[in-house]
Amino acid sequence: MAKTGRGNEKNMSGVSRREMLKIMGAGAIGTLFPGAGHGQSSGSFSTSGGDGLIFLVGDGMPLGVIKGMHQVRTRVYGEKGTNFYSKMKAPYSMVGYMSTESLSSIVTDSAPASVTWSTGVKTLNRVMASLPDGRPLKTIMELVKEQGYACGLVTTTRVTHATPAAWITHQLNRDNEDAIALDYLKFKPEVLMGGGSRFFDPLRRKDGKDLFKGFSNEGYDVVRERADLLNPEIGSSKKSLLGIFTSSHISYYLDRLNQAELGKKQPTLPEMTRVALQKLSKNPKGFILQVEAGRIDHANHSNDAWAAILDTCELDLTLAVIDEYLKANPKTIVIVTSDHGTSGWGINGTGPEYNDSIEALKKYQPIKASFEVIKTRLKKEMALAEIKDVFEYFTTFRITDEEASMIQAAMQPDYRPFHGDYVFQPDAVMGKILAHSLYDKRKGMMEGPALIRRGNVGFTSTNHTGEDQILLSYGYKANQLGLNRHVDNTYLFTAMCKFFGIQHQNPTMTEEEAKPFIKTASLEEWRRHMELHIA
Amino acid sequence: MAKTGRGNEKNMSGVSRREMLKIMGAGAIGTLFPGAGHGQSSGSFSTSGGDGLIFLVGDGMPLGVIKGMHQVRTRVYGEKGTNFYSKMKAPYSMVGYMSTESLSSIVTDSAPASVTWSTGVKTLNRVMASLPDGRPLKTIMELVKEQGYACGLVTTTRVTHATPAAWITHQLNRDNEDAIALDYLKFKPEVLMGGGSRFFDPLRRKDGKDLFKGFSNEGYDVVRERADLLNPEIGSSKKSLLGIFTSSHISYYLDRLNQAELGKKQPTLPEMTRVALQKLSKNPKGFILQVEAGRIDHANHSNDAWAAILDTCELDLTLAVIDEYLKANPKTIVIVTSDHGTSGWGINGTGPEYNDSIEALKKYQPIKASFEVIKTRLKKEMALAEIKDVFEYFTTFRITDEEASMIQAAMQPDYRPFHGDYVFQPDAVMGKILAHSLYDKRKGMMEGPALIRRGNVGFTSTNHTGEDQILLSYGYKANQLGLNRHVDNTYLFTAMCKFFGIQHQNPTMTEEEAKPFIKTASLEEWRRHMELHIA
Repeated sequence: MAKTGRGNEKNMSGVSRREMLKIMGAGAIGTLFPGAGHGQSSGSFSTSGGDGLIFLVGDGMPLGVIKGMHQVRTRVYGEKGTNFYSKMKAPYSMVGYMSTESLSSIVTDSAPASVTWSTGVKTLNRVMASLPDGRPLKTIMELVKEQGYACGLVTTTRVTHATPAAWITHQLNRDNEDAIALDYLKFKPEVLMGGGSRFFDPLRRKDGKDLFKGFSNEGYDVVRERADLLNPEIGSSKKSLLGIFTSSHISYYLDRLNQAELGKKQPTLPEMTRVALQKLSKNPKGFILQVEAGRIDHANHSNDAWAAILDTCELDLTLAVIDEYLKANPKTIVIVTSDHGTSGWGINGTGPEYNDSIEALKKYQPIKASFEVIKTRLKKEMALAEIKDVFEYFTTFRITDEEASMIQAAMQPDYRPFHGDYVFQPDAVMGKILAHSLYDKRKGMMEGPALIRRGNVGFTSTNHTGEDQILLSYGYKANQLGLNRHVDNTYLFTAMCKFFGIQHQNPTMTEEEAKPFIKTASLEEWRRHMELHIA
Repeated sequence: MAKTGRGNEKNMSGVSRREMLKIMGAGAIGTLFPGAGHGQSSGSFSTSGGDGLIFLVGDGMPLGVIKGMHQVRTRVYGEKGTNFYSKMKAPYSMVGYMSTESLSSIVTDSAPASVTWSTGVKTLNRVMASLPDGRPLKTIMELVKEQGYACGLVTTTRVTHATPAAWITHQLNRDNEDAIALDYLKFKPEVLMGGGSRFFDPLRRKDGKDLFKGFSNEGYDVVRERADLLNPEIGSSKKSLLGIFTSSHISYYLDRLNQAELGKKQPTLPEMTRVALQKLSKNPKGFILQVEAGRIDHANHSNDAWAAILDTCELDLTLAVIDEYLKANPKTIVIVTSDHGTSGWGINGTGPEYNDSIEALKKYQPIKASFEVIKTRLKKEMALAEIKDVFEYFTTFRITDEEASMIQAAMQPDYRPFHGDYVFQPDAVMGKILAHSLYDKRKGMMEGPALIRRGNVGFTSTNHTGEDQILLSYGYKANQLGLNRHVDNTYLFTAMCKFFGIQHQNPTMTEEEAKPFIKTASLEEWRRHMELHIA
């Protein structure tokens, strides 16, 4: 996309999401995106004989954003319900809570969170499937692969990002994504899909290796575009599959919905999941598949409520595809969870008696792009008038000079927000402005019904948070695994071993033993990591 | 307490919480307060024949503050665990989730939230046990009383506050607390304990009625001080009990721990609960008891993390008393929940790799008073130096002139915070300053281990929030009530009816039917309500 300001608006998709809704005569996001719903063209599921385990992660998906997604779908778009809530309420489902501390912090990073699931062991923030002293930990994917099960990883982040990678790699620093891509080539998962071509492309890798060729040489189908993925031959091919659709992360669902060129090139999470299940279920013994809606976390880091809601919506639509699979393959268990909270996330009560809360939530609806996209149009040299124009174009909200100044200030290199933990800028400032439920001043300090101008989702920071996360499971043997109470995240490894009938105990270290291995980064180095993390 | 500034510090309790810890040679909050633990002097429990239902509410207690309490107890005070987490993990416990929407808003007020439990019906924000059109709804307490069960209400708020009152009263506006006190006199619950003497005292009531005398005339024991409550004769007396210990709400647990005169006069929630159970269990048929840790909500409205953590701690200590009761009386069920979230509440990841998160949480420990108390020492005319001194005295943190200016500005009558929903001031500004994890500047922008000065709990607003709340139940018939999944808050009425073998269906209204009855207050009127709410 072009990088200058307002003049390029014609480069944006000519059809806004709102207009699409109108065209399609439907209020449901679910019907918006081709193939997001049921029965799409790339094929239905046949019955296989093996046992399947689907592990669905909403990265950084605290309770608040799940509820936000549900309220938007039901109250704003008028849908009857959501898959998430149907499952949470179903008599056959198990619901529980999960604690998420790592070995170095009560607030975990995604790396050790995913390591607890994949190995049953706590390690330090940033470390992958290894103990703090470097001893590698055997992962559930390594264990089941030895027994002949197929393995798959699907994500909307770079495939080399921490959450999927921790199921396979033993790198001591999650940022070694070049090395992680090589680890994948060595491990050979049957399905690997997401973003991150920069770690496969010989022109972008530091070692100049061509990993696309590498996977191809190992007998993989390699796809780079949505259209190729949806080609029925890919689903029915007996080869393993590498699908890498973007240089870095897959775009936010919000942006794929609004920019036709993105939506055309990049598949949805439900689409990737469908093809993954078609392929993995060919293994007669069975499979394990991790599916990650990985950018809910990023949107929350950015305090971008609407992008977070829509990425959570994409996770919800994925549940429908999984349900379809379960109908044909009842010997499958589904585990849904989140690795940690990100940035708090609350729908704040709005207006007198909180009675304007729904109206305020509705105000996010006309937003045309994620902060990730809006930021590409904002420049630190811009005049206030230009900032106001850009903000209005993408959000429909005309902001004040004072608000534009706040955005301008937050873009300057020397900007240090008062609240030290709001590191993602100007994102957090934009999030704050959007959550500012301004009332119509013409009527005085407000009487009668809602006259609010903006949304109401608030954030506690731009960092991860320490509260417990949701745990939902259903399907084959779900009632035998002890997931219907409060568990530590390490217990999920135990439960998965139980499902597969595997016994394995990795070595552990105590917090005290781990301390000498904690190498705390400088704040500047940490900032660079954080920027890389979501960019 | 005197209302002027620093000069009165000697009027404060001479013994700080820290010094108390030292004196008592214990790191556990649980051992701090006389009678908070097990086996205290006011007597143990004998076995009764009836069925008991204990409904324990943490008002405005989202997941984040429960976790904060657990982390503080285990990581800061070195305790082995908490009652809350033991119960959440116990194989015999049922855990679930609960949605909290009211009929007028996706973000509920405490009044209709409590009405859903007590009647199974959704109504408008601020309305008590009635439909929006005024039709009264029969409450579970009315239903069980008719069948001969005893009823009890215990809270740390005014007893006339919405959460306890909705189990009995049908007032259309929760703020009619004078009338609610009269409704209690009419209903005659066997136990009624908490704060709020101003609605019982003839000198404070608008109608001049003496409700203490009124209850006394109806055969109640009336107690006004902790010492009287702990008199064994009260526990063993066959009379009903009215215990009103403060003019408005009971002080925060934090302030009762730090100010000896408060702790001496006002009982703890565990103490009130113990006496309530002793009395109610005398009824051979059984009883229903609502116990509310009602000020977690207030502390969260004020963005006062430490006060919220300690009030949640008091709820946790109450669980121990209840457990003791259950051992002697196994035909008892316990339901623990929260009516809604308040102000988001997240322990933010702190510092590089989030590795300073525990250190930051520890920084709350030396705080000597709630914002409620600190505010009585801050005056809007104060110079910055004075504001800095007061803040430092109570928190130990020396703030900057800029920070003191923020507090000063937030105290001015015309103050309008940018973020429109941070209505409680200067509370929210103080909360923000405390959550500002400043690093030691001498070492440059930070290298090496934690050098942070302050805490890390962030808030999304000073309002209620819309996410689902925790649901925990255990004891008699707990596994027969369907509370081990996601339920709507109205379902708790159904579950309680099931427990008591009662069949009752109240009339309902749809959101559409309710709309004409929504009378939205002006913002100014709402502000007055909010101030009254927590003051």
